[in-house]
Parts: sequence; C-alpha cells; structure tokens
Amino acid sequence: MTPNQPGQMPKMPIPGVKYLIAVGSGKGGVGKTTVAVNLAVGLASLGYKAGLMDADVYGPNVPLMMGVNSTPMAYGDRIQPLEQFGVKLMSMGFLNPGDKPLVWRGPMLHSVIQQFLRGVDWGQLDYLVIDLPPGTGDVQLSLIQTAPITGAIVVTTPSDVSLEDARKAIHMFHQVKVPILGIVENMSFLMCPHCNERIDVFSHGGGRRTAEQMQVHFLGELPLNPAVRIGGDTGKPVVLQDGAPQAGFLELARNLVQRVVEIGPQDGPKIEISD
Amino acid sequence: MTPNQPGQMPKMPIPGVKYLIAVGSGKGGVGKTTVAVNLAVGLASLGYKAGLMDADVYGPNVPLMMGVNSTPMAYGDRIQPLEQFGVKLMSMGFLNPGDKPLVWRGPMLHSVIQQFLRGVDWGQLDYLVIDLPPGTGDVQLSLIQTAPITGAIVVTTPSDVSLEDARKAIHMFHQVKVPILGIVENMSFLMCPHCNERIDVFSHGGGRRTAEQMQVHFLGELPLNPAVRIGGDTGKPVVLQDGAPQAGFLELARNLVQRVVEIGPQDGPKIEISD
Repeated sequence: MTPNQPGQMPKMPIPGVKYLIAVGSGKGGVGKTTVAVNLAVGLASLGYKAGLMDADVYGPNVPLMMGVNSTPMAYGDRIQPLEQFGVKLMSMGFLNPGDKPLVWRGPMLHSVIQQFLRGVDWGQLDYLVIDLPPGTGDVQLSLIQTAPITGAIVVTTPSDVSLEDARKAIHMFHQVKVPILGIVENMSFLMCPHCNERIDVFSHGGGRRTAEQMQVHFLGELPLNPAVRIGGDTGKPVVLQDGAPQAGFLELARNLVQRVVEIGPQDGPKIEISD
Repeated sequence: MTPNQPGQMPKMPIPGVKYLIAVGSGKGGVGKTTVAVNLAVGLASLGYKAGLMDADVYGPNVPLMMGVNSTPMAYGDRIQPLEQFGVKLMSMGFLNPGDKPLVWRGPMLHSVIQQFLRGVDWGQLDYLVIDLPPGTGDVQLSLIQTAPITGAIVVTTPSDVSLEDARKAIHMFHQVKVPILGIVENMSFLMCPHCNERIDVFSHGGGRRTAEQMQVHFLGELPLNPAVRIGGDTGKPVVLQDGAPQAGFLELARNLVQRVVEIGPQDGPKIEISD
C-alpha cells in the first residue's frame, strides 16, 4: 500500500508563492470547485494576491465557473496564467477546451501537474488555491507529495456517504503529513424560496461532528442555495454578488487566513534558494 | 492522446452473465451510485437476476448504501459475492473497510478490477450493473477496454457544470465503442416538503436537451428527494420503499430493459468458448 514516489522530487518552494492551499474532497460533486473558486475570488476581494490552479485534469470546471475561455500564452518557457476577477488562473480546460475527454493515464498527468505548479509564471502570490480532483488517486498523491502545501481544506456535504469519503481524504492528508486547515460542510441546508422554510436535503451537522471526531478544525457551513449553482453555471462567482452566500464565503476566506496564521511556518524539509 | 491498452486483453465474455451495464458520470456526486444501487435492486424486484459490481475503488459507497458490511469468502480461487435484497455484490469496500484511503496507483487497480470481473463467482445473471468511478480516468478505461459491456448509462444533474462533464463521458464511451443506453437526469427538481412547491435547485431539463444534442437516448429524470439520500445513508434503497422515488427507479429499470432489447446483441469481436 506504499505509494510510489514519482521521480523523488523534493518539495521545493514555488518562488513568489507564500501559501499553497489544497482544496480536496473524498467524493465528487460536493462543491469542491465551487468552494475553491469562491475562496480564491474571496481572498482577492479581501485584498490578498490570489491564484487558482485547477488540478482536476479530467473534469476541469474552473473555466466555466470563472467565465474564462481562452488560451494562455507562453513567453520563453514560462506559461502566462490568465486572470479573472483579480485571480491568476491555470486549468487543463484552457488547453483542452470542448467536450473531448482527456484519456491520459497517471504518469502523463504527473508531468502536467508539475508544469502547472512550476512552469506557470504565477508571480507574487499570497495564496495559491489548488482545486484537487476528488478522491484519493494518482493525481492527488503526485501533487501533495511534490508540492509544498501549507494545508488542506476538505469539502463534504452532510450526507453519511459524503462523510465516509471525507474521512478517507483526511486520512490521506495525514498519511502524507499535509496539515488539515479544516472541514467545510457544503450544501448544508436549503431555505425554500417559496415558503422560506428550511430543508435539510443532504442532512445536517455531519461536517462539524466529523471534525470533532477526527480532531480537525471546522471551517464553517455553506447553504445549498440555487444562487451558488447559478453563479457557477454562468461564470459569475457568488462571492462577488451581494447576499447571504457572499457573506458565507467571505467568512470562510477569513477563517482560512486565520488558520494559516495559527499553523505557522510549514514543517518538513526546507530548501533555501539564493539568487 | 491514445490510451495504452493494458495487456491487450480481448473482451472475453463473463460466463453466465448476459448483460453488463456500466453506470458512469463525468462528474462525481451526481448520484451515480444511487442510480446503480436502485437500478440493480429494481431489476431484482422486477424478477431479473441481478448483480452489482462496485468499481469505484477509491470511494466505494455501495456497502453503505446496500447496508452490507462483511467480508466475502473464497472457495478455491473463486471469490463468493455477498448478496443483499436479491442482488449479488462485490466492492472494494468489503476488502478495505473503514476510513483508510486506498492510495494505490493505476496499474494495481487494473488487476483488482479484473479480479472483480472474472475472479468473482457471479453465477447466472441477467444483468451485472457496474458502478464506475466518476470521470474518464484510468480505472474507467481499463474496465471498458477489457469488459464486454453491453451499454452505458450516463448520470448527470441538470447543472451546466455537470452536463459539461457528462458530455466528456459520452465522448469517452463513443471513442471506445461502448453503446450509450441513455442519459439519466438526477436531482432534477425538489418538491418542498413544507409547501409542496417545486424548487429547481440544480436547474432543470439539461439532461434531455443534452441527449437530443448528442443523439443519445434520454432514460428519464429522477427528483432530488431527501428520501433517496436517506435510503442511501441507511442502507435501505429507496426503490424498495413505497412512494414517488420508487416508481421513478422502477420505470428507469424498465426503460433500461427495453433499451437493451433495442440494442440487441453486441457489436465487436466475439469469442466463442466451448466446454
């Protein structure tokens, strides 16, 4: 069960990037990309320099959710990230647009991820948010074994099925010694737009309970709100629009900043680079 | 972009199994496993001999959703599937229970999937439903390149983000010449349990529209109903409980049977095996 280390690359820092935040989930469809997008845009609107790397190479939804659809340029051997809503962006969706699936196998993906991390001209960033693919597979392992990740956020819905997979993701991060910044419970509840009564579509409270059981932080709960999905489908992140969801995502961004301060400098081997 | 063929295995039939139905999705969390579970149990309750193979090796939710948690026995070199609600079952969750993630890489998974297909004593089955992992990655490719799949069902929600990934999955099945049985639109709408008004949480109608655009069948829409999720979380598939969701899943099972008849015998190379 010991994973193979591809290339035995050390966890070299990414020059200019202060904090690398991985957003993961055990299960897909829990709103991981929605959280990553609104977190990155939220950090930018709070005044931080933010970037967003879409590492979900098989189902890259960041371009659609950020309303960007063009091809990045390369100057020399450096790829220039796109920029939208003040956030620097890179996604496989920019390189492989349209509906054709990417049917690459693991090893080919490792090099793409490395290109995204180290071949992209991220410039000076306070936060580079990395949208991981869901689950605990090849791409996740490669990335968290080779990138100097400050900490990870695990997104789940309150359903038992989603929590079962979230626990797996937390164990994975523990195994590879990536600090957990906390759990986010997404699709936590729905307020009926007709009668304003609360509906616990996917149950409620399991995120906080799981955080307590596993002794990790709970970063907050986000409602299931059609406005959030519409923001994603139309490329206008909900964190930029006045309303309850905006407040929730901005609070999440502030909680994240606070957690990063608490965690302090990273453990693990440090490599000093001098010019 | 040409995928490597692992081992160049021919698509040998699985002795005793009439039809292999793959249930896939471009995106996770759209209810793929919920559809696979209720479809298999629905087929059994319609009188067909049904099996369910959980190929979602990283996030195997079938044991939880079927309320089964024990270890399969092996007689000789054949693994005996478990049985629940009249459905024969195999899942990585039976072999790797608990919260520890499976951090195997691609090649190790290929052999597990082959074991599940050919090392399990499935017996005589009309339908073996295969719950694929979400996406278009390694495991999906291995499986559909080596198993004699009758046809595939693609599950999506009506959100544009989910549909974007569903189109990728359809292209993948086209590329590897697996017939598409049809698209299922899940979480299609929610009836508020308080005021009984309809809420289109994830939009509505995109499944049917996408089916028309891509000239594949539309197998039906299933509501977003907390009873469906509760059935999954408690190991009591909703198709066994009286109510609207039951009717929807039974209709889906009947539509599937009809589509399999329409498709007729499989194309592609056939290998005759004589005793």
